[in-house]
Amino acid sequence: MNVLDVDSIKKAMASIDILPAIEAGFVAYSEGRAVVPPVGELLFESPPGEVHIKYGYLAGDSYYVIKIATGFYDNPRLNLPSNNGMMLLFSQRTGELDSILLDEGYLTEVRTAAAGAIAAKYAGPRKVHRIGIVGTGGQARIQLRYLSFVTDCRKVMVWGRQEAKLGLYKEEMEAEGYSVDVTLDTGEIAAECNLIVTTTPSTTPLLTVGQIRKGTHITAVGSDTPEKQELDSAILKAANVVVADSITQCLERGEISRAIQNGVLTAKDPVELGDVITGKARGRTDDDQITVADLTGVAVQDIQIATAVHEAIKD
Amino acid sequence: MNVLDVDSIKKAMASIDILPAIEAGFVAYSEGRAVVPPVGELLFESPPGEVHIKYGYLAGDSYYVIKIATGFYDNPRLNLPSNNGMMLLFSQRTGELDSILLDEGYLTEVRTAAAGAIAAKYAGPRKVHRIGIVGTGGQARIQLRYLSFVTDCRKVMVWGRQEAKLGLYKEEMEAEGYSVDVTLDTGEIAAECNLIVTTTPSTTPLLTVGQIRKGTHITAVGSDTPEKQELDSAILKAANVVVADSITQCLERGEISRAIQNGVLTAKDPVELGDVITGKARGRTDDDQITVADLTGVAVQDIQIATAVHEAIKD
Repeated sequence: MNVLDVDSIKKAMASIDILPAIEAGFVAYSEGRAVVPPVGELLFESPPGEVHIKYGYLAGDSYYVIKIATGFYDNPRLNLPSNNGMMLLFSQRTGELDSILLDEGYLTEVRTAAAGAIAAKYAGPRKVHRIGIVGTGGQARIQLRYLSFVTDCRKVMVWGRQEAKLGLYKEEMEAEGYSVDVTLDTGEIAAECNLIVTTTPSTTPLLTVGQIRKGTHITAVGSDTPEKQELDSAILKAANVVVADSITQCLERGEISRAIQNGVLTAKDPVELGDVITGKARGRTDDDQITVADLTGVAVQDIQIATAVHEAIKD
Repeated sequence: MNVLDVDSIKKAMASIDILPAIEAGFVAYSEGRAVVPPVGELLFESPPGEVHIKYGYLAGDSYYVIKIATGFYDNPRLNLPSNNGMMLLFSQRTGELDSILLDEGYLTEVRTAAAGAIAAKYAGPRKVHRIGIVGTGGQARIQLRYLSFVTDCRKVMVWGRQEAKLGLYKEEMEAEGYSVDVTLDTGEIAAECNLIVTTTPSTTPLLTVGQIRKGTHITAVGSDTPEKQELDSAILKAANVVVADSITQCLERGEISRAIQNGVLTAKDPVELGDVITGKARGRTDDDQITVADLTGVAVQDIQIATAVHEAIKD
């Protein structure tokens, strides 16, 4: 049995080709081979906190995974991060605990970024002129890094509300080899970029349909609750293809659920990412189409990344 | 953050006075101060296995606890135990992981035995002539050990189906200072003992109402599913007091649920252990009464024992 801290996990991740593993997870999910029970939850009032327990397995696989993710929102006052997390990996054959991954939420960040890259690979434009990033936080950084696995484009425009955060983002990502312009106007992102990733916890739309040019792909990763919304629902209506990581889940939360509530989309409109990967559902078919991917986060991503880390370090 | 293996946990338990902690847990539960969401479950077909995730906290306490218990029933073929388990203890203030208790199911054994002792303390006869143990497994041993905290009686009669296992039980428990007789007839247990603990996975009653003498207390710990049953339901009907660890849970599984199904008990008949401890509900009131305690296992016991171990080792 292994106990890994976040530094060891980051080291292990450097040698892992995670995209194929996460792709295989989405395929298994869309093919109905994933067993993912409802999320367990604990809520605390004072200080305000929440705990989510996500767990499941792929039928016929070697492991099952339990992920515990926490959000305690007074933590910054104690100089602690609000979000934390760990994953436990057990044998499907004996039930034994094989690995404790004390990743502090890092693997959730990575599996979310990997899903963004996969969405861009299957629904994004063939030729990316410029990448638009909406938001300046952790996902705004890691999404860009993982897009490098599926596009050669290193030209970036980033939107944020605070110039200081934009400056920091530009500095950090340029040090990693990107060319970054900053803007306070999402219209500029829409005008300049044909691959856009939105990464904010916004509850009001940041991009409107009139701004979006033909051929654009947008991946929305910020909206993971019923309240959050980053995209004008009219964008989903105008899109030729709307991809969901999990249709079931996207009917409950995220951009798709909002667009359905707003009456511009029906539950039959979205296609599922795993089905687009296998070709069972149609993704982008020409360079002028507008495409949207709504990623709310599926437990199968956690299962796949925990398995990949365990397999990498077990010998 | 601590990671403790089962040997370290056993060592820590030696210095812990667990009964008051578990008693306080039952009181908190009956007073509505425990937050215990529904149990999470994963099932596997081949090899057959099951995983239960139990979690919760006491409002205003320092920690919350997640317990993962597994049963993989082909494990003995691999020379591995069928049952395994671990507990995770986190801070209610920050969400941070404070202890990983790799107890392999040991703490579940202990908290179950502690509940047996508490039931005997509050509902058992003042003077115990002889202790009757039904079953020869792990709980048959540890229940006896924990009863020593609440009674001076060391005279024991044990029932089992296999003479070899009875012999082993007698040998082991006599080495620990008990005087043990063995029997293949539960009628002898009923005739000789006024404090009886049933610890088997039986699905047909092992004790019948005609056998039970006045003044007897029976604690049933074996029946933890809707299918299992150790006591003739007529015993519960004849009992002056029927105590449940959790009334809600005992309506779904265990002896009480069976007696209600059989129409000899109503949902209003049982009293809850936490209420008996505080005196809110009436337990045994005289030496001639027959009393029954039905223990199905409550997450609050896990919370309390994990907390006690963590507090003992954290310095």
